[in-house]
Parts: sequence; structure tokens; C-alpha cells
Amino acid sequence: MDEVRLKPIGVVRSRLTAPGQAPHQGPEAGSRAVIEIDPQWARGLTGLDPGRDLWVICLFHLSPGPKLLAHPRGDQARPPTGVFNTRSPRRPCPLALTLVRLLAVEEGPGGPRLTVRGLEAVEGTPVLDIKPYVPGLDQPRKDDHA
Amino acid sequence: MDEVRLKPIGVVRSRLTAPGQAPHQGPEAGSRAVIEIDPQWARGLTGLDPGRDLWVICLFHLSPGPKLLAHPRGDQARPPTGVFNTRSPRRPCPLALTLVRLLAVEEGPGGPRLTVRGLEAVEGTPVLDIKPYVPGLDQPRKDDHA
Repeated sequence: MDEVRLKPIGVVRSRLTAPGQAPHQGPEAGSRAVIEIDPQWARGLTGLDPGRDLWVICLFHLSPGPKLLAHPRGDQARPPTGVFNTRSPRRPCPLALTLVRLLAVEEGPGGPRLTVRGLEAVEGTPVLDIKPYVPGLDQPRKDDHA
Repeated sequence: MDEVRLKPIGVVRSRLTAPGQAPHQGPEAGSRAVIEIDPQWARGLTGLDPGRDLWVICLFHLSPGPKLLAHPRGDQARPPTGVFNTRSPRRPCPLALTLVRLLAVEEGPGGPRLTVRGLEAVEGTPVLDIKPYVPGLDQPRKDDHA
């Protein structure tokens, strides 16, 4: 399959500078970060108001490469399972999916800045996409066990 | 920001051959598809049993390019909003995020095959990542309005 080339839409500005400092999965930790968006995409943020729940897709850019078996949530007490059954950063395509709460949108010198809660990413993490959380799409269907 | 290069982990096998045929957002439509995984990543599927809810991140490989304002869900009756406030395929990084139900895992001649419900992707769509749905991470926190 052909390689896919993507240009990040923005970058994370964070107090975290090394992966070891990052808590495992942001929403539980409630960590704050700023996403600085490339100014060329500013109009694409129309309608994103504080209080919204958003998906952020980042690149685990410091991932040392895939490891096919991993401990869930990095918990060594739990038996290793397939990487696609975990949220480990050591994935073949090192994409991170995080649900965040949008706290503020401001104009900064480098472009629009989104302050979010729940993002564990380190300073400089490339951001590939932002999407709205849509309950009807993003929750398992309860009647779906047929 | 530097371009990101990713190698798809698999490809969608689907009856849908053109984007127009794809229903808007799979989970509501309940469409079935097969994801064929590159055999080199087969061990990474360990622990993925039928019945699981999974995130699938695909590339909207037929997207004609970004459009910064879009009608939500393609509904022309709704006023246009920023692309990052929609799930439109016409995004700067054309990534698709879909919650699917895993129905079956089989070994195929081209590699492991995951049959899923709720994936709207057309035949040949590159699959970049598969992740488990984790309720504690993937639901907005109810106490999160402080």
C-alpha cells in the first residue's frame, strides 16, 4: 500500500517536554494544553465555541516504532495484548486519539490558539485533525448486539 | 511543519465503490465492511474478539481537497460551519474516525480480515489505525463543566 503524506494542521504547546512526563491518557488527568493552528486553516474553526467536546488526532512523533504486543495502559500488571487492542503510542501508524474539552479560542501571533483540557501531548506534538464529538456517532449503539 | 508519512496498516473491502454511495457516517446506517490487515501486523490484533467496539481511522483518499466551511453532515438545510466543527471528508488532513462493532476475525489469503459493522468507507480505502473504544477515555466527563 502506498505511503500517505499528511501536513499537520497545528502543533501542541504544552508544559510537558518528554513523553515520560505525560500522564497516561489525558482526559483522566485533566491536563491542559494549547493547540496552535496553522493560520491558513483559521476559518475552519468557525463554530468551535468553548465548552465543546472535541476529538484531537495527533502524531506520537517521539514513538520509537511499533511494538506488536503491549501492556494495556502501560500497566505491567496486566498481560500483554495486541497493540490494536491498546492505546499504546508504539503503533504502526503512531496516531493518538484524544477527547478534549475546549476551554478557550484566542488569536495568537502564530495563528489561532485553542486551549483544551485533557490533552497529554508533549510540546511540539504535530496535530493532524480536530473533529466535533457527536454523541450519535461516537457512542456504541446499545441495540447493536444482534 | 514537516509533512508526516504514514504507511497504512490495511485496506477496506466494501461493496461501496464510489463516495456518493456511502451513507453519511456509518454507525447509523449499520453498513458492513471488511478490513484486510497487512499480515506483518497480525500479532497486533491479539485480544480483538468479536463484539468489541473499535475506532477505525481511515484516510478519505478520494477527498478532492479541503473546504474550510461545510454543511454539518452534508445537510444543505443547516448553515455552513468550520470544517473542524464537522465530520466532512474535505479536511486539510483527510482522516476519518469511525466507531465500529467487530463482528468477526478471520484469516484470509491477503492477511487477517476483520468484518465490522458501521464502516461507511469505499472499497480500497486505506486504514491507518485501529484502537479499542475505552469508555473512560472516549466519553465526555459529566463533571467537566467547571
